[in-house]
This record gives sequence, structure tokens and C-alpha cells, in this order.
Amino acid sequence: MSDPAKPAAIRLGIAGLGTVGTGVVRIVRQKAALLSARSGRDIVITAVSARSRGKDRGVPLNEYAWEDDPVVLAQRDDVDIFVELMGGDEGPAKDATEAAIAAGKDVVTANKALLAHHGQALAEAAENAGAVIRFEAAVAGGIPIVKALTEGLAANDITRVLGVMNGSCNYILTRMESAGLSYAEVFDEANKLGYLEADPNLDVGGIDAGHKLALLASIAFGSQVAFKDMQLEGIGRIGITDIRHAADMGYRIKLLGVSQMSGRGLEQRMTPCLVPANSPLGQLDGGTNMVVIEGDQAEQIVMRGPGAGMGPTASAVMADVIDIARGTRLSTFGQPAASLRVIQPAKTATPAAYYLRMSLHDKPGALAKIATVLGEAGISINRMRQYDHVDALAPVLVVTHKCDRASLDAALSAMPGTGVLASEPVALRIEEV
Amino acid sequence: MSDPAKPAAIRLGIAGLGTVGTGVVRIVRQKAALLSARSGRDIVITAVSARSRGKDRGVPLNEYAWEDDPVVLAQRDDVDIFVELMGGDEGPAKDATEAAIAAGKDVVTANKALLAHHGQALAEAAENAGAVIRFEAAVAGGIPIVKALTEGLAANDITRVLGVMNGSCNYILTRMESAGLSYAEVFDEANKLGYLEADPNLDVGGIDAGHKLALLASIAFGSQVAFKDMQLEGIGRIGITDIRHAADMGYRIKLLGVSQMSGRGLEQRMTPCLVPANSPLGQLDGGTNMVVIEGDQAEQIVMRGPGAGMGPTASAVMADVIDIARGTRLSTFGQPAASLRVIQPAKTATPAAYYLRMSLHDKPGALAKIATVLGEAGISINRMRQYDHVDALAPVLVVTHKCDRASLDAALSAMPGTGVLASEPVALRIEEV
Repeated sequence: MSDPAKPAAIRLGIAGLGTVGTGVVRIVRQKAALLSARSGRDIVITAVSARSRGKDRGVPLNEYAWEDDPVVLAQRDDVDIFVELMGGDEGPAKDATEAAIAAGKDVVTANKALLAHHGQALAEAAENAGAVIRFEAAVAGGIPIVKALTEGLAANDITRVLGVMNGSCNYILTRMESAGLSYAEVFDEANKLGYLEADPNLDVGGIDAGHKLALLASIAFGSQVAFKDMQLEGIGRIGITDIRHAADMGYRIKLLGVSQMSGRGLEQRMTPCLVPANSPLGQLDGGTNMVVIEGDQAEQIVMRGPGAGMGPTASAVMADVIDIARGTRLSTFGQPAASLRVIQPAKTATPAAYYLRMSLHDKPGALAKIATVLGEAGISINRMRQYDHVDALAPVLVVTHKCDRASLDAALSAMPGTGVLASEPVALRIEEV
Repeated sequence: MSDPAKPAAIRLGIAGLGTVGTGVVRIVRQKAALLSARSGRDIVITAVSARSRGKDRGVPLNEYAWEDDPVVLAQRDDVDIFVELMGGDEGPAKDATEAAIAAGKDVVTANKALLAHHGQALAEAAENAGAVIRFEAAVAGGIPIVKALTEGLAANDITRVLGVMNGSCNYILTRMESAGLSYAEVFDEANKLGYLEADPNLDVGGIDAGHKLALLASIAFGSQVAFKDMQLEGIGRIGITDIRHAADMGYRIKLLGVSQMSGRGLEQRMTPCLVPANSPLGQLDGGTNMVVIEGDQAEQIVMRGPGAGMGPTASAVMADVIDIARGTRLSTFGQPAASLRVIQPAKTATPAAYYLRMSLHDKPGALAKIATVLGEAGISINRMRQYDHVDALAPVLVVTHKCDRASLDAALSAMPGTGVLASEPVALRIEEV
């Protein structure tokens, strides 16, 4: 006999039974008592959907209704929350999410690409339908960062959000450093180990991490998600020499996401940067993620944890499910979608020091020509080193004083005209943290 | 004209206008638009109470009703949330909180002592009255750790909660190390700088941090708050030599809170421990707090931030207020108070390696006697060092292999019988993180 005081069970329809989906099924099956105690009601799965029905996923699925079409799943009468774990910014994930919202279902999703591209439209649709969309698992895996930013720090004017949000890139950079291997060698290694997406450019090109940052920026600054305005640069041009030079100077190189509001507008970058080696971000090794939130009241809050994997990502999905089961109902990006502003993207980044690595033809006056180009662009040099070399190419390193990115770009454009560059310079921002 | 779709303003009655209370008043006054956008309703202060009415707190208070008696404030018809920022585990804070709950008001409090001693009774009373108690500001200042544990990690069986939760103690230990000063010297310095409570033993005795850990343990393990069962040890016996010896071996000393469930029962300790110098906890300097939560799904989540101060603590208070304004209503400790269990305290801690520092009378066989006592208690020695010395007292350091605390205590009890100890040994747990 059911407890008359206890509300009805909340019923999940899960679309996508890869690693994360399987993890969610496991938690629901194995932790029924814990989930019920904490939610105040039972949490059950009623229906599932995936591409291949026959595949053995190590969890029994025969108690659940099967739908080949996630759009049909999303509209089932016995589904309260549509759990979208398929991925992709178009196609079935988008169709099914829209169908769920149109049917008034709440949505829990791990799909950063979908929200980075269609977050505003989906949030508006959800709010009009009285449904909520939660996406803790879309950003930084098991770290409850969406909750911390949306709720825990809601009384702050956020000044900056930054972090390492792609574990695969951090693994590659850390491994290059510790093993003294080239980018290409570690890339191949990571690919073989299955650490990279089917399209590795989503990882190493910074796109996946950029999606995550765009979602956090929307919450932080009350702005419509603007992934299209994000400056993206991957880690493919980072050499082991850059990592060593940076270490010599007390820095480490990270694929760093930074979003901040300045008089220039909204800045969003996902680019390789130098950070102080003794800062929390500089100390982050391997596949771990770290997000730093700076607010006018809370100062600096740092959160660190696993950015991927079955347990951590399923933990985040289920946190959203428990919130909804408990009756918590929030606007997708922390305030009504209609009140999110379109904020002008900053044309140029807040000034910073930059690291420049160049390879110069070893002829008289080469270094002077580079120094002159920098000076003419108004960039003053903090440190400059030319290294010993045996071939005809001189490795030269420059650390600038703080300057505008526009000035740096002007200098970089003028450099080929000097005729002394052997290849395109590597220019990395030094982010103060 | 008011917006007909917007719910009525939520009205705060604030008791206690010290640093935190003043910070809350500032946020409410200066961020009305932000709070309203994020909460979906206006947040206003209707009444305040403090010991001294005349004092200039740098914020205008004349728009608010003044109550000399916080119990009267807590019951006012124009108060929706009673914000308790007075402190103390008895007296006005307790009376007013009980009065607020009896009147059906929600309570937001920064009072760790009150909840550590009366949390269960207050939670039961609140739930019976349909009121909520939130206490983000009671634990680790600006870090949204109560939220992360109660909500963000709610799908996890928590295996361990640990952390540095008293910034003053961490400041003292860090400063001893960096300046090479004694505990007494840095204690005096910290006291003069106003870093310590009026009763400094609340800080350096670990009591304040113990209150915080007891609250986290209740959420983590679904247990009734059991501060009385916590093992407390302050930092007063830590010498600069201990800090240096620990550093030599790759460790740092922290006043560390640890709570975990084992077959032995519930373990709760707030004691000085050695942690690996290269772990996040080992890298924590100064007055910053850090809490680590380990769960079976999310693995290890680390949160770091300011543990005190006007802005950070007021940020936490206001996060709770915004939650309530948004309609979020949670059980005080994450599940109904009536369902929280009384968990048997563990009689002894999970085995660990220990650091022992002894001062021995320099006579033949002294070291052998100590080694024999340890051996007879079943404790095997990992490392042992006797240091060069000029007086008649030989400094001896032992790091044990993993052993039971009961065995260690047996050895420590037997040591005085050897007649070679010049003073009571310092014994510190080495916590694996």
C-alpha cells in the first residue's frame, strides 16, 4: 500500500544509453531508497530509447518501455522528465527536446552543444510551457558548477568566470610536459585510449569547452547564450618548447576559458593561456576540470572535480532530477529567458601580458627588426630571450608588458614584412588568476 | 503600478548587525534590480534588531522598523524570513529562531553553534511548522558547500567529507611556516589583527570548525547532528619543528575536519593532520577554506574560497534568501528531520599512518625503548629519525605504517613507563587525500 502523504513517483524517460545513460539507469536502480529519502518521492524509469536496442549495456532494461523514436518517448504520458543524453546540436536531440517541452515535460540534459546553439529558444519555449530545463551535466561533469553559479552565488555581480573545462586537452598538455612528448605523439596516444570525441576537433579545437563556457557566461551575466561570439583557439600549435619556456618563467599552459564583462562588452574566449604555476589552475593535472568564479561579494570560488566519466556525469544528471522531484523550479539560465539581454561582444580583450615564441632566420639585425615592430605597435617588452641554436633558425621568446590584443595583432601582422620570421609566431595570453 | 504577474516582495527581518548583517543590508540596498531579476520578486528589509541602536554601521537603517528584542522581530507580521546573524548556541539567537519557527517564518542563519547543538530539534520544529531553515553561511563562508552537498551531490552515497574550515587556524599554521615563527608568536599576532574570536579557543581549539563539520556530516550521512561525538583537538601543540619535519617528508600540517562512515560507525574528527604537500588541501595557504567531498559517483569534488568576511558570508546568506524567494523549499539537512538516523559514533578511527614527535632523554637505549613500546603495541615503523642536538634532549621523529588509533594510544600510554620521555609526544594523523 502506498503512503498517502507521499507524492506520486517521478517518472523518467531516458533517450540515449551510452556511458552516461547507462550510469543514470544504474543509479536509479541501485539507489532507490537514498533517492526517495532525499527527494521525498520515488524516482523511476518508465521508458528508454537508443539507437541500438539489442546491445548489452550491462543493466537490465526489459522493465522499461522501449521507443525507437526519442520524439515519441519525449511525449509519452508516463514520462514526467525527459532525460536527453544523446548529444548533438541538431537532429533527434533537438527534435525530441522540443517535443518534450511542447508536451509540458521537464527536461534534464547533458547536451552542451544543443544549448550553446539553441539555448535561448529552448529556454523561452520551456518557460512558456511551464517546463524547466536543467543541464548540470552539460558543464564540467560531476562538478555542481551550474548550481553554484545559478543559485549559490546568485547574490553576486559576477566579474569573471574562468576555467579548464576539457579534461582531454588538459590531459594532453599535462602528458606532453611530464613525458616530454610532442603534441602529435600525445594526441595519437589519447585518441587510441578513447579520450577524444569521434571528431577530435571538438576537444582539441576548444569547441566542446567553448559550448560549456557559453552556458556559464549566460548565467553569470544575464545574457543570451552567444556561442557564435566566442573566440576559439585550439591547442594544436602548442609545442613542448612552449610548455618548457612557460615552466621556466613560472607558468603552465592550459586551454583556458575566460568570460568577463568589461566596458568593452562581453568577452568570451576559449584559448590556450599561460597561468601562474602556483595558482589552483596552474596546479591542475590530468583529466580533471576546474572552474573559478569571481564575484563582487564572494571574491573567488574555485571548484575542481572530474569533468567526464559515467559516475560523475550521471551524478550531475541525477542532481537535476532530484531538484525537480523536490519541487525546485528555476529559469533555465537563472532568470526568465525573456529578461536575458543581448550583450555586445567585446571587440578586443581586456589588456594582458602576452607570451610570443618566434623562429627567426639567423641573420644580423633580425632580433632588432622584431623589437622595432613591437615598439611601433606600442608594445613594450618585459622579457626577451634568444636561445642557443645549431641550425640557421634562432628561437626567440618575448614576454610583453600588459597590452591591447589589437596592438599585438597589429605587430603580428607587421612581422612577416620584416622578412626575418621563419614561421608564424605562437602568441599566448598570460591570464592573471 | 505593480506588475500583476510578479509575486509580492519577500520581506526580511534581520537580527544582528555586525559585519555579516551589515553586509546583507548593503547587498539588499545596492542590488535590488539584480536580486529581483534572479528571484522573480523583490527582496526588501522591513525590520532589524541589534544590541546597540545608536552605532554607526555605515548603512542607513532608518527606513526599517527597529526592534530591541529579536524575539519580537522574529514574530512580526511583516517579516517572511527571519535572518539570524547574532550567533551563540543559547540565548537570544535560540529564542528568536524558535519564535520565528513557531510563527511559521522561514529562517536563514549563519549560526553554526546553534545548529550544531540544536539542529535536530530546530529542523523538526521547522518541518512541523511548514517552515524552512537554511544555513549556507554557517559553513565555509562564501563557498556554496551546503548547497553542493545537499543538492548538487544528492545522488551520491557520500564516502568522506573533509576540509579546512577555519581560516584563522590555517592562517596561523601558514604564517608559522612562512615566517619561521612559534605558535605563541603568531597567535598573538593574529589576535591583535582581530582574526580570532573573542574566545580564541573557538578557533584554535577547533570548536568552530567542528560545528561546521558536524552540520556537513548530518547532510552527508543522513544522520542527526552529533557534535557531542566529535573528536576535537586544537593546534596549540603544533611547533614550528613539526611544520618543518612535515615539510621535509612532503607533508603540510592542517587543522583538518574529516567525517566518514565505516563499519566502525560514524567518524568525526577536527584535529591537526598531515596531508600531502602536493594535494589541493596541502596547497591551501592563508585564511582560505577548502572542503573536499567524496562520493561513490562524483568521485572527488573540491571547493575552495574565502571562509569568512563581510562579502563572502553575506553572499551565502543572500543565496539562501534568493532560494526561498524562488520557491525552493528543502528539508534542513537534505531529508525530513524525522528520517535522520542516530548513527553510532565510531569507537576508533579508520587506520592511518601517524607522525610522532618525541623528545627523549639522551641516554643509552632510549631510542630502543621507544621502538620496543611501539613494536609491542603492534605498530611497525615506516621511518625514524633522531636529529643532531646539543643539549641533553634528543629530538626523535617516527612515521608509522598504517595502524589502529587504539594501538597507537596503547603505545602512547606505555611510553611514560620507559622513563626516557622528556615531554608528552606529539601524535598527528596522516590523512590520505
